[in-house]
Amino acid sequence: MPEQSPPQAPTSARTAASPETSPSPGVSRRALLGTAGATGLVLGAAGGAVGYAAAPSQATPLTSVGANMAMFHGKHQPGITDGLQAKGHLVAFDLAPGAGRREAAALLRRWSTTAERLMAGESASSDDTDVARDAGPSSLTVTFGFGHSFFSRTGLEKQRPVSLDPLPDFSSDHLDKSRSDGDLWVQIGADDALVAFHALRAIQKDAGSAAKVRWQMNGFNRTPGATAHPMTARNLMGQLDGTRNPRPTDADFDKRIFVPASGSGDPSWMAGGSYAVVRRIRMLLDDWEKLSLTAQENVIGRRKSNGAPLSGGSEKTAMDLEKTDAKGDLVVPLNAHARITRPDQNGGAAILRRPFSYHDGIDADGAPDAGLLFVCWQADPLRGFVPLQRKLDRGDALSKYIRHEASGLFAVPGGAAKGEYVGQRLLEG
Amino acid sequence: MPEQSPPQAPTSARTAASPETSPSPGVSRRALLGTAGATGLVLGAAGGAVGYAAAPSQATPLTSVGANMAMFHGKHQPGITDGLQAKGHLVAFDLAPGAGRREAAALLRRWSTTAERLMAGESASSDDTDVARDAGPSSLTVTFGFGHSFFSRTGLEKQRPVSLDPLPDFSSDHLDKSRSDGDLWVQIGADDALVAFHALRAIQKDAGSAAKVRWQMNGFNRTPGATAHPMTARNLMGQLDGTRNPRPTDADFDKRIFVPASGSGDPSWMAGGSYAVVRRIRMLLDDWEKLSLTAQENVIGRRKSNGAPLSGGSEKTAMDLEKTDAKGDLVVPLNAHARITRPDQNGGAAILRRPFSYHDGIDADGAPDAGLLFVCWQADPLRGFVPLQRKLDRGDALSKYIRHEASGLFAVPGGAAKGEYVGQRLLEG
Repeated sequence: MPEQSPPQAPTSARTAASPETSPSPGVSRRALLGTAGATGLVLGAAGGAVGYAAAPSQATPLTSVGANMAMFHGKHQPGITDGLQAKGHLVAFDLAPGAGRREAAALLRRWSTTAERLMAGESASSDDTDVARDAGPSSLTVTFGFGHSFFSRTGLEKQRPVSLDPLPDFSSDHLDKSRSDGDLWVQIGADDALVAFHALRAIQKDAGSAAKVRWQMNGFNRTPGATAHPMTARNLMGQLDGTRNPRPTDADFDKRIFVPASGSGDPSWMAGGSYAVVRRIRMLLDDWEKLSLTAQENVIGRRKSNGAPLSGGSEKTAMDLEKTDAKGDLVVPLNAHARITRPDQNGGAAILRRPFSYHDGIDADGAPDAGLLFVCWQADPLRGFVPLQRKLDRGDALSKYIRHEASGLFAVPGGAAKGEYVGQRLLEG
Repeated sequence: MPEQSPPQAPTSARTAASPETSPSPGVSRRALLGTAGATGLVLGAAGGAVGYAAAPSQATPLTSVGANMAMFHGKHQPGITDGLQAKGHLVAFDLAPGAGRREAAALLRRWSTTAERLMAGESASSDDTDVARDAGPSSLTVTFGFGHSFFSRTGLEKQRPVSLDPLPDFSSDHLDKSRSDGDLWVQIGADDALVAFHALRAIQKDAGSAAKVRWQMNGFNRTPGATAHPMTARNLMGQLDGTRNPRPTDADFDKRIFVPASGSGDPSWMAGGSYAVVRRIRMLLDDWEKLSLTAQENVIGRRKSNGAPLSGGSEKTAMDLEKTDAKGDLVVPLNAHARITRPDQNGGAAILRRPFSYHDGIDADGAPDAGLLFVCWQADPLRGFVPLQRKLDRGDALSKYIRHEASGLFAVPGGAAKGEYVGQRLLEG
């Protein structure tokens, strides 16, 4: 669990679209509604009559949570730099026996159409399940990726990025293969649980006979408005999680997170794309919660209350690695999680964490089956996740309290241009 | 799945408390913050300096979702007439071997203290897990009930309400006993997932050696602000769910939902209480979603879009049971769910539905393990849930698409007065 901050929501991606960038007149009207809701304008009779395509009988303007809309089209896929959403689904598919490149291309085309429609708050199809009816897009994002096995099943081995080579084994891994990897990966996030569920069902339905669900996981983050804390999420251990995430405004953000158009070793179809490392990290909460506050803070190297380094200051203060206490002991222990994961201790490696917490009830022993659906983004996993995790593997004090139970690595291509589907440059290249 | 509306949020229970009714000065300050947030007032420096006890470093005023607070003390327990929350946990405990009335009394005292503190947005204890830190109470409610087996284990058989006699078997039941019943039942709801999880962990910790978790389930509803639809929730089948729920403003609402102080056959400690029927109702969504919209509407007897009866009108229009189409067929089929559950077809039986949806991923066959955590409230299960379910059992068109997988029936005593704990009148009576 390397330490980084969750991404900040780039305003342009989370707020309503301007009419010029809207894929259809219907969407631009919704965008206007969204803007009105966000700024607190009261719509009159004319405004009130502008309804959602999905809910023609619904004349009341949506409030801001429902009206928030992420953009499907763009240089990058949605769901990477967009703000954390309250609900998430991760789902991996394997192509059906006999399905190849052609079926995969048709599937990605269907999926792209569905994602674009749902992200705009529209119905998926004429026989939509209607579970999301009445709600707005609620910041829905749908993100598609390809796993290592996809390329051999579709005869596209030559297009497989070297970065998809399997991650090394880590000594802390307790991986369930049936919940790891997969030919195709879809990440769904939304601020409303029914909107997210609706999208999951539509994506599954689109898979039809071409692909079968391999594994599926559910996660969550804070509800919008539940906290005034502006940026950093808390995880189920109670820690601020992601203090040091790179920010889209950083000068080297794009270089670290996204594959460039040229000059890297990546195939050209990955331009604007990113690699996602997905880990289901169980937290051994019964053990963790027995520790005193001081012991917990020594494991992390930061104050639980505000995320400040134990060496002093506030959340964003640089950690003083040399500081000692009156007895001459290091204030931030050598094996503290935050010390080990400091970027300047790792050759500048940086990942963009964008996790969901998960909680699947209790296991057969009565222990909570809960923790983190860790999702991190980087231009190069061998410079991002791998060196960080290797260091953690050798001496992280946190490792006693967590267990990596599933793992995946996916190539997430750049965003689709208008009229294009996600992955088209690979599948029709 | 009898058809009723979800409860409306009684404004008094969902909005911030007035200082006079607040349990402590700290709470009244939070209450004022909540009111300011809800009405859009901008707090100045003085207001901004009023922080949460749980987050002393947090100077920013909370927004309305986080600031909403339900009241722990009152005639009834919270979580019955309060509005649907975005996240819920249901958990049942069995008393540990050797634990009896004394240990149960101490446990209910601990639980009541914790519930009161958490519902006010405070920490549970000095070694709180801090998972809810930074967030407000977020409409948290914690509700406690007693199952049939509780009374024999504590030597309180004489105090056991007749209404706790086991529910009859229904032919549609496929009950998993290990996820049914239990000595004690706790319902947790909140509009923020971390606040709800935090409360669940605190309640489990309080159980200590006195009681052990028997089963635990997670559920959800819409996020506040995701929809402008004012009242009725949608379930995972896409149906408006709960159109005919009784409302707290109805003249006979209290009589139907709450046990009176005298004149019923209930023991006196149940005055102000209610009986909760809990059913985990799985939806066979792969089958359901294959039906056409028309077929789905004929199963329910209402329009999917707006909940209007097939006989015409809008959601709240009375159903015309006799109306026929041009061919002379009944417009609302004889086995339609909404026809069978009409209160005037059931001797006026009424229940207050207050469900959560659930989604536990996929089962071993790849089918969605999703549906409804049906929770309904009534003064008398033999006049509420039982006759409704019996009718449904005999001819409900919906029964092909759902499966009752777990069941519980709990006596939920009235609310605790100041200085009292929930169940005290039973345990110290």
